[in-house]
Amino acid sequence: MKLDLEIVQFEPKLAKTHENIDLMEKYIKGSKANIIVFPELATSGYFYTDKEELSKVAINAEDEIISQFQSMAEDIDKLIVFGFPEEEDSLFYNSAAILTPDREKSSIYRKSHLFYKESLVFEEGNTGFFVVDYEPLNINIGTMICYDWRFPEAARTLALQGADLIICPSNLVTGVWQGVMQARALENSVYVAVANRIGEESKSFEVLKFNGESTIIDPNGLPLVSAGGNNEISIVASIDPDLTRDKSFNEFNDIFEDRRPELYFSDNEEEE
Amino acid sequence: MKLDLEIVQFEPKLAKTHENIDLMEKYIKGSKANIIVFPELATSGYFYTDKEELSKVAINAEDEIISQFQSMAEDIDKLIVFGFPEEEDSLFYNSAAILTPDREKSSIYRKSHLFYKESLVFEEGNTGFFVVDYEPLNINIGTMICYDWRFPEAARTLALQGADLIICPSNLVTGVWQGVMQARALENSVYVAVANRIGEESKSFEVLKFNGESTIIDPNGLPLVSAGGNNEISIVASIDPDLTRDKSFNEFNDIFEDRRPELYFSDNEEEE
Repeated sequence: MKLDLEIVQFEPKLAKTHENIDLMEKYIKGSKANIIVFPELATSGYFYTDKEELSKVAINAEDEIISQFQSMAEDIDKLIVFGFPEEEDSLFYNSAAILTPDREKSSIYRKSHLFYKESLVFEEGNTGFFVVDYEPLNINIGTMICYDWRFPEAARTLALQGADLIICPSNLVTGVWQGVMQARALENSVYVAVANRIGEESKSFEVLKFNGESTIIDPNGLPLVSAGGNNEISIVASIDPDLTRDKSFNEFNDIFEDRRPELYFSDNEEEE
Repeated sequence: MKLDLEIVQFEPKLAKTHENIDLMEKYIKGSKANIIVFPELATSGYFYTDKEELSKVAINAEDEIISQFQSMAEDIDKLIVFGFPEEEDSLFYNSAAILTPDREKSSIYRKSHLFYKESLVFEEGNTGFFVVDYEPLNINIGTMICYDWRFPEAARTLALQGADLIICPSNLVTGVWQGVMQARALENSVYVAVANRIGEESKSFEVLKFNGESTIIDPNGLPLVSAGGNNEISIVASIDPDLTRDKSFNEFNDIFEDRRPELYFSDNEEEE
């Protein structure tokens, strides 16, 4: 069964939660796709180095804002994925909400690998990598956030759990991730959707420039659609989860069955 | 300390061991590099589907041919890496010899992941992934062969063992590996050297076309030098193993220390 996946690439305004949410809501209500994805920290903007400041935009999973998006997912029968700064017990996480029309399936992923000054304000994610199996669309969705891309174990863990699609809300600032995201799709034979933001944020004399180029990549590692580097835009591609289920590519090889976990990593460096 | 790494891309002639070895010897004797690398199954050619036929070109580690290359490595003070069909106790392996001027450090790697019809004649490699620490050149060399590229765990295992350089003798037939090899270098911050062959081999009505494009990639994932797709050529690049030792890229991030092995893979699918 084919379905439409939409990525909204935009510039979240720092600390302007309601302005950002209004924009997101506008895109959600105008969308014809089955799944709509926004960047990392879409509700808040990115560059926080002070917990006091972050606490003003942080959102608890029980807050009205999350319920509001959950209700939208239910009302218009759409999966909604977006990044936000999560607060729980006065600790902060760089999180992504995966909201499905079935409230029971809705989940929050907390970023596992923190980038740069994020560790000044956020805790390392403690949810681990998991897959949301959304049966009405016959799709298994895994989520990772931004810098998680750099660790092949992240996407691999999601794919081994059966992810057909890996969604990666991002605030990417480098120009080296594009080819690696394609590798993640190819090496796992899954779709990869990178929802990156645009614009700049500065703190003291430090400027971060986010480089857009959001993309949806097919299980062969080929981009189906890609956005520009500095424009607000929504991009859509049709994806077919069934194409990711068979990991064989000839009568002798299957990229999962061919794995040899007993040879991987070394006992003294790994806890697995 | 910088050193020169050379890849010889050529067309091994099927079943013509001595012709292939003569050509390799010519390149070795003419080389000014510290390390010289040849493709997978360089001594024999690739497409064997019958063990009887393979047995005629298979080489035991104790055979004169290996001693001859070992002596060359010692005499001209050079590391020599090449693929060959290895025989031991009437079993066959798709192997690579890593011969160093220090005979004690010389090793044989047996391909872990077999591609396509290789499994008709070769056993799955049982050496695992290991690194040769060659102190006179201050370099740690890991080896994988061809289809091992597809498994991020292979290069990761070598890098976690301290590989500065991953050598990948290959007989690649697809056009999808180039970007992923760059990802392997970038995600592990190591050099990657792909020694691919050229030419065609056929069996019954099946033709395999090997696509060359041998390349040496730096720890940022950028090719330092690349060969064409169908020409015999030797390519050389200067590499600096010290550049791979520090895995940090800012004051907060180190791509190895940032790993979270406790979150990787799932207990029910992995033996680690």
